[in-house]
Amino acid sequence: MAATDREIPDLLTGMATTRAIRRIAPDPIPDDDLSAIMWHATRAPSGTNRQPTRFVVLRDGPKASEAKSLLGEGFRAGWAEKSSSAGYESGSATDLSTPKGRQRAAMQHFVDHFEDVPVIVLACLMRYREANPYEGASVYPACQNLLLAARALGYGGVLTGWHGAVEGELRDLLGIPTHTAIHATIPLGRPLGNHGPVRRLPVGEVVFDDAWGESAPWVHDPEGTRHAGPPPNHKPLDER
Amino acid sequence: MAATDREIPDLLTGMATTRAIRRIAPDPIPDDDLSAIMWHATRAPSGTNRQPTRFVVLRDGPKASEAKSLLGEGFRAGWAEKSSSAGYESGSATDLSTPKGRQRAAMQHFVDHFEDVPVIVLACLMRYREANPYEGASVYPACQNLLLAARALGYGGVLTGWHGAVEGELRDLLGIPTHTAIHATIPLGRPLGNHGPVRRLPVGEVVFDDAWGESAPWVHDPEGTRHAGPPPNHKPLDER
Repeated sequence: MAATDREIPDLLTGMATTRAIRRIAPDPIPDDDLSAIMWHATRAPSGTNRQPTRFVVLRDGPKASEAKSLLGEGFRAGWAEKSSSAGYESGSATDLSTPKGRQRAAMQHFVDHFEDVPVIVLACLMRYREANPYEGASVYPACQNLLLAARALGYGGVLTGWHGAVEGELRDLLGIPTHTAIHATIPLGRPLGNHGPVRRLPVGEVVFDDAWGESAPWVHDPEGTRHAGPPPNHKPLDER
Repeated sequence: MAATDREIPDLLTGMATTRAIRRIAPDPIPDDDLSAIMWHATRAPSGTNRQPTRFVVLRDGPKASEAKSLLGEGFRAGWAEKSSSAGYESGSATDLSTPKGRQRAAMQHFVDHFEDVPVIVLACLMRYREANPYEGASVYPACQNLLLAARALGYGGVLTGWHGAVEGELRDLLGIPTHTAIHATIPLGRPLGNHGPVRRLPVGEVVFDDAWGESAPWVHDPEGTRHAGPPPNHKPLDER
């Protein structure tokens, strides 16, 4: 089915309903759809329009299967560490009737079935200068476009950094050059669940007017917005 | 005019036609529109849904005018340095009939009129750990959503880092805490020109299949796509 045969959501609705998709069917993404997803990803801006991001797409090629196995290991290691450090191994996390229990089950399913995800995209930044905290300005806007384009065509994915545990082996396998960084690993495919509204903090808590910490009386959540705060045990450095 | 009265582009068209807008009318952005822009920005993902980004919105409040003057200085310093280092002061850059000449004029207009831009958004990251090259994963997707939401409602802006030259004074003025970084300065308003298709490298040059450098035969630019490469004198570290 060509992209144009489908009902594409409008730009605002699309952003409001692109949530992280971790339960992904194993069906391949047709070439034309994947092409459209990648093309829209590359419409994002970058500093001086340098376009330093390169996408390595892992599907079913000769190296993809080995790369997916490596990444699967990395993701399972990442989740094992997180589920232990973030309290996902006891209390409400073991109860599927709680939000935390459902999160845990979804994450476990995700890492256990990682090798079956049809498409993995590595977003790689060819560095123009030494690594710095702001270089992501030229790669993460493209990652967001990629996720939105996937949503537009009925697919879904999630922005992750769990290649970390296996990065050395992965770079060797795929031939990623020395000064090129892997900034994200994005699994993509058809969602097993549904797209739907994301949950965030009340917008008034994250938008300030005129100075840090000053509330913005003009900002408001649309009616029906449902909220979610950050995990309870995460505090920024400035609040410790 | 409420957001809902307007024709919102579809998600794919929106991404394809959100280019950097630097010629901006001085008219204010109505509260409801600005609220909708900020709300959609905050729909973006962040690591562990921590939502560490805070937006400081400068309009016409008591500190905004001083902050805009400071930033104007910073932007003019940034452009002076870049126009000299990137060859914008001689040759074709002085000829308005060339693309480079038009770029130069647009940049000069942008920095000369910086204080008249109605809304400046600072995207600030409350750090949860020490600064690192990947932390932008939790702030730049929101910046991209912000630009897309502005586009959806007929506004425009540009993702910049030119607060650098005046960052210390700006932080003091606005009370930005120690471990909170300014990741982007985004001027926003009604475009004096038009929205339109962005220009990028041919998509086949930036998408690899199965391994680094391997071409992806399934990816293609839609008919009519116009291309632009990076500035000629910019080479990534791996190619030097």
